[in-house]
Amino acid sequence: MLDTLFNHRSIRKYKPDPVPEDVLVNILAAGVRASTTGNMQVYSIVVTKDSELKKQLWEAHFKQDMVLQAPVVLTFCADFNRFSKWCEWRKAHPGYRNFLSFFTAAIDALLAAQNVALAAEDHGLGICYLGTTTYMAEKIIEILDLPELVVPVTTLVTGYPDESPGLTDRLPLEGVVHQEIYRDYKRNDIDRIYAGKEALEETKKLLEINNKETLAQVFTDNRYTKKDNVFFSREFLKVIEKQGFRKDEGEL
Amino acid sequence: MLDTLFNHRSIRKYKPDPVPEDVLVNILAAGVRASTTGNMQVYSIVVTKDSELKKQLWEAHFKQDMVLQAPVVLTFCADFNRFSKWCEWRKAHPGYRNFLSFFTAAIDALLAAQNVALAAEDHGLGICYLGTTTYMAEKIIEILDLPELVVPVTTLVTGYPDESPGLTDRLPLEGVVHQEIYRDYKRNDIDRIYAGKEALEETKKLLEINNKETLAQVFTDNRYTKKDNVFFSREFLKVIEKQGFRKDEGEL
Repeated sequence: MLDTLFNHRSIRKYKPDPVPEDVLVNILAAGVRASTTGNMQVYSIVVTKDSELKKQLWEAHFKQDMVLQAPVVLTFCADFNRFSKWCEWRKAHPGYRNFLSFFTAAIDALLAAQNVALAAEDHGLGICYLGTTTYMAEKIIEILDLPELVVPVTTLVTGYPDESPGLTDRLPLEGVVHQEIYRDYKRNDIDRIYAGKEALEETKKLLEINNKETLAQVFTDNRYTKKDNVFFSREFLKVIEKQGFRKDEGEL
Repeated sequence: MLDTLFNHRSIRKYKPDPVPEDVLVNILAAGVRASTTGNMQVYSIVVTKDSELKKQLWEAHFKQDMVLQAPVVLTFCADFNRFSKWCEWRKAHPGYRNFLSFFTAAIDALLAAQNVALAAEDHGLGICYLGTTTYMAEKIIEILDLPELVVPVTTLVTGYPDESPGLTDRLPLEGVVHQEIYRDYKRNDIDRIYAGKEALEETKKLLEINNKETLAQVFTDNRYTKKDNVFFSREFLKVIEKQGFRKDEGEL
């Protein structure tokens, strides 16, 4: 278990070999054992293997090749649709068309996703999360035919790895852990915490390729720009509303 | 690994024995190996053991006894503060005061939390997630002194279990998994998926105790009511805004 946790690498190149059905069922079964709010299981997992559908998802996910290559694409959705239907058909009045319920369901979906990721890795499969899921939620909703009260929050691709990358660097533990309460970062804390990352050979290459003075500029100017973040914030908030997760809020 | 995934139980009663420091460091180190967006690690983990602080957190978390009992309380926060400070001190212009960045950071925090939960269980510790974190985010921010761009999204209590509950029921796998695209639920699907849960002895007891006709009513009328959900939606959205995660959106 601990080995699996400590040996995680994101895999971006996959062999064409399919994932055996019993393995896939086992990793999904591991997913549903994750903690879930009030045991409501307010999430759904869409398993996509069909090449035509995967092609559509690949386009939605900024044409990242691994979406086409990996035999299985798993879309994890915050889902209060199933639970609300159950309520309605059981003489109960569901009250889950609101932001808190969306967020609760997103938590459920993400904990299940991480269980699935770890179970997959334990079976020798590789995985990679697709952060593009929230950016392109509207398109994914169309492709997967997601109804009201269902919003995709993350995606995992999985299959047999066709690369074996090294372990990715992480900040020192003291950089992300706070004792008792939050101690805000002073300039010398930031210098110390990021020193290792900034000294990496990989960082030097990135600065050259991107023609930047600092690694932080690669993030702010190229990878995660304010302009994109603001644009996709609006898109994602629109999707949350469109899928019905704000309807109650005007009412009470 | 798979054993740990399949044997998860939430533990709500704890022995007073402390968690050895090396074990705690190991489970936190497992946490930071989780996938993280662009390797930004936009989360923080606040480790609270002090009994006075735990008492304050216990009050925030609806006075659930396990918060006092468990020797360690771990608050997982979406955190773009550290990353933004790094950007500012590296001649870069951070653009993370927006909803998408909040949600990205929340994903990071939740994946790390699930790694920590599993590592803890692998060490023989018990864990329980506290859903009250989002409800009471403002109070938790005060207690833990969380600065702008830091929002608590979930909490884990951990320690040595003083109970050994059975495995909790789950919906059948086909109830939460969709093949290729989402297939919406018809009445007979819902009947089939929820049949097992509704037939449980535990469900019958709940109906009696709560004097309800259906289990769904226990959820809608008592546990997760529309009124509470709407109230806490507004509170949580206010917190996200107050912590600075909507500032960019008016700008571009």
